[in-house]
Amino acid sequence: MEISEAAREVLLRRWPVARLGTLAHGAPRLVPIVFAWHAGRIWSPIDAKPKRGDDPRSLARVGDVRHDPRVCVLLDHYEADWSRLWWLRLDGEAEVVSAPPAGSDASLAGAAEALRAKYPQYADVPLFLGRPTALAVRIVDARGWCAGPDALPRE
Amino acid sequence: MEISEAAREVLLRRWPVARLGTLAHGAPRLVPIVFAWHAGRIWSPIDAKPKRGDDPRSLARVGDVRHDPRVCVLLDHYEADWSRLWWLRLDGEAEVVSAPPAGSDASLAGAAEALRAKYPQYADVPLFLGRPTALAVRIVDARGWCAGPDALPRE
Repeated sequence: MEISEAAREVLLRRWPVARLGTLAHGAPRLVPIVFAWHAGRIWSPIDAKPKRGDDPRSLARVGDVRHDPRVCVLLDHYEADWSRLWWLRLDGEAEVVSAPPAGSDASLAGAAEALRAKYPQYADVPLFLGRPTALAVRIVDARGWCAGPDALPRE
Repeated sequence: MEISEAAREVLLRRWPVARLGTLAHGAPRLVPIVFAWHAGRIWSPIDAKPKRGDDPRSLARVGDVRHDPRVCVLLDHYEADWSRLWWLRLDGEAEVVSAPPAGSDASLAGAAEALRAKYPQYADVPLFLGRPTALAVRIVDARGWCAGPDALPRE
């Protein structure tokens, strides 16, 4: 069955993890992300969780998005009980948002606040790695599916 | 830290879920999949878990792969304890493998056996929806990361 718009909103606000698909020289590249839903966009910070590279400007997903903004964000749940499966796929366009060298970007500041509220882990892990930078995804299309009426998490 | 080849093999054999990225008219499309590691390839069946469409031949991922074989398969683990995060990204080329109208494909039959062994759910859910069909992914490149030595599941 489909996922209602109300249920989609709950998932965007509450679900802790998503998988981001970007285009790497035209091929799909996937990575797990944390994110917050803020001001109508999905925000994923370039944070200080250990990464393969240390320079946020050279992070693969940042380069991918700068080259081609088309992304796909997947929220889903897997468990052994297949009557509880669901997924929500959001096709979108991503933008790399950085705080200006002096001062801060208002939408980025709001997203940072939403991320800190959603993830207590950011009390210990720096929210940004170097200059504050995040990917902001505007949703262009949404498709969802759930195995049954009890599959989705409740508010 | 990196994921060793031995640890990668364990994850491919044991981890129950992955996310598959295909190319939909050049844009990334993501979907959660179940899979088995068999004969050096990742096999994901077009099974009878309820889907948005009922005809396996018209399933979006099948059409995507027929049009462009480049895929990305992501195995990962999320939990609130960020010292236990890991991901394994497998870039590959996918092929749609179907049983011939008469008889069966040997590699597909082996993959079906591996899938039934891995997922007891297939005692109740038909492994194939109509004509036996699976995506088989040959791994071209593998990249992995884990937060620490205790992050990965053990054999």
